[in-house]
Amino acid sequence: MTALAPGSTIGILGGGQLGRMLSVAASRLGYLTHIYEPGTAPAGQVCAALTQASYEDMSALQDFANAVDVITFEFENVPATALDLLAALRPIRPGTTALAISQDRLTEKTFLEGLGLTCAPFRDIGSLSALEAALTDLGTPAILKTRRMGYDGKGQVHIRTPGQAQTAYAEMQGQDAILEGYVAFEREVSVIAARGVTGEVVCFDPGENVHECGILYTTTVPATLTGAQRTDAALLAGRILNALEYVGVLGVELFVTSNGLIVNEIAPRVHNSGHWTQAGCAVDQFEQHIRAVAGLPLGDGRRHSDVVMENLIGDDMDRLPDLLATPDTQIHLYGKSEVRPGRKMGHVNRIVT
Amino acid sequence: MTALAPGSTIGILGGGQLGRMLSVAASRLGYLTHIYEPGTAPAGQVCAALTQASYEDMSALQDFANAVDVITFEFENVPATALDLLAALRPIRPGTTALAISQDRLTEKTFLEGLGLTCAPFRDIGSLSALEAALTDLGTPAILKTRRMGYDGKGQVHIRTPGQAQTAYAEMQGQDAILEGYVAFEREVSVIAARGVTGEVVCFDPGENVHECGILYTTTVPATLTGAQRTDAALLAGRILNALEYVGVLGVELFVTSNGLIVNEIAPRVHNSGHWTQAGCAVDQFEQHIRAVAGLPLGDGRRHSDVVMENLIGDDMDRLPDLLATPDTQIHLYGKSEVRPGRKMGHVNRIVT
Repeated sequence: MTALAPGSTIGILGGGQLGRMLSVAASRLGYLTHIYEPGTAPAGQVCAALTQASYEDMSALQDFANAVDVITFEFENVPATALDLLAALRPIRPGTTALAISQDRLTEKTFLEGLGLTCAPFRDIGSLSALEAALTDLGTPAILKTRRMGYDGKGQVHIRTPGQAQTAYAEMQGQDAILEGYVAFEREVSVIAARGVTGEVVCFDPGENVHECGILYTTTVPATLTGAQRTDAALLAGRILNALEYVGVLGVELFVTSNGLIVNEIAPRVHNSGHWTQAGCAVDQFEQHIRAVAGLPLGDGRRHSDVVMENLIGDDMDRLPDLLATPDTQIHLYGKSEVRPGRKMGHVNRIVT
Repeated sequence: MTALAPGSTIGILGGGQLGRMLSVAASRLGYLTHIYEPGTAPAGQVCAALTQASYEDMSALQDFANAVDVITFEFENVPATALDLLAALRPIRPGTTALAISQDRLTEKTFLEGLGLTCAPFRDIGSLSALEAALTDLGTPAILKTRRMGYDGKGQVHIRTPGQAQTAYAEMQGQDAILEGYVAFEREVSVIAARGVTGEVVCFDPGENVHECGILYTTTVPATLTGAQRTDAALLAGRILNALEYVGVLGVELFVTSNGLIVNEIAPRVHNSGHWTQAGCAVDQFEQHIRAVAGLPLGDGRRHSDVVMENLIGDDMDRLPDLLATPDTQIHLYGKSEVRPGRKMGHVNRIVT
């Protein structure tokens, strides 16, 4: 593919904060963006065009595809029928394979193990008896997760004793699920990696993540890792990207254990734990993704500064006056009008000197 | 004034690259922007609303003012009648005084000298005989400049010998002009400074500028300056900001001479020589301006990296593939569809390590 010329239009499925920051990054490279979003669209404030329609509206999808030069997404749970229609009209990057794999936890883990990577032990759960057998097998504590549509801790139940099996299974409401065994990890890190159309792979430095209530709270770079762990993290991200013939940015969440790195999950898109790159690198994850999608050379991923990224969730917004007055601190708000508990309203990147 | 709440709308007069980058910076702080631009509007690709109308369209101006919470500008030559109408409806930051002063080179220099600052020697030129007398007085070489509407070397004629007076005067086409004496400078630097609504003043590190054909070509930070010169530069910028009770970012161009700093000109807006802050500081000049205009605390101005900014002018765009592949390099394109000689198409910030 030749690179997308400045002035071309990039279609983005999903108009949340990730789409918003992708749109801004695209503008820096001279591209226009067209956002497709069924709900409210913070990205609609910084794009050249916005389609507000459902993923079932085939006519709107078709018009959208015809209006853009290439399609990407901020949101991995776009229905397959929509993707099939779009893919027939325009290139979708990353491809629909990566999306299909990451939409289903069972498929994803099977794929990752097939690459020789280590995941948390897991079992496919199609019934209460399967769950009871799996709990005997993997022990407690364990986590029951829906196979599809989970994010930010949603669709997950922690099972602390075998006696909780029935209640936990009921919470799945009949959805396909998997049980994940407990992993005794020292820390959680993530690698934000990118692959270009020519196959080049670039990784940003791994970030160290702290979650609260299932939601990412902070990412700190550099992460506390040995040199060997750092290399392993980059190599396994590269292996995933190459296996998927991936084009774009991918987030890989890892558990660091005494036995090495365990892959928790992958996200086929820019990732919350990569927001620090906005303050720490010449080319951030959003621009890196746009470069890949547009067929441009990738940024080099070098980190010029240490950064702590902190999410602003719900009434963290009350801290805004203090944060604005803190030196070396970059604020990113998402343009969401309503503050709700657990809602990501923005984030802060603090350069550490 | 209380700070502008996230979700408020900032009106921006002018939809060129400066308005575009201001709009993106405003989005980071959760604001919407409404651009007002008579011509083509690259900023229209990244704003919530765009009005395309002339500065003489009083009805469009009124609707614009009513749709926004505060007004700023990327362009200092907005006609006074438009400003008066707008100022009656909404706060304009920086104020109309700063605009009026910087719209006229004679007023500007008189104002600067009134503050005890040194400018290049100048004379008011209302006739050919006044020009001839001024050339006798100030000597050659000298520069004849229109009092109004000059930028990027436009509206300027270099006079190398007294015999060129008549031709030079004819080029002014009857416009009011000033003659500036020659300054033997070692280098050109600029200070990008900001003042908030509470009167706080923050300066970015001075950048060293190289012009070609009257257009800024590169800015390098840090500039080659003594500690005393660096302090002088910040102090004189602060003096200008305070005298104007200025709110927003101001660019001050300086000549460095063996006798100290000479003020070349001021620009009451974000400035091309401040683009390096996008790669060198947590809060760049665009966000700094938005923070001031919105009544937020200013960023601290600290530079975390050395940067060389280079403008992409006209067919510099042909170098894009190489620049995209250069490490530690940030590209900013302005979304202009047509490449023309001398037209600013984008810029590059290279982090120097």
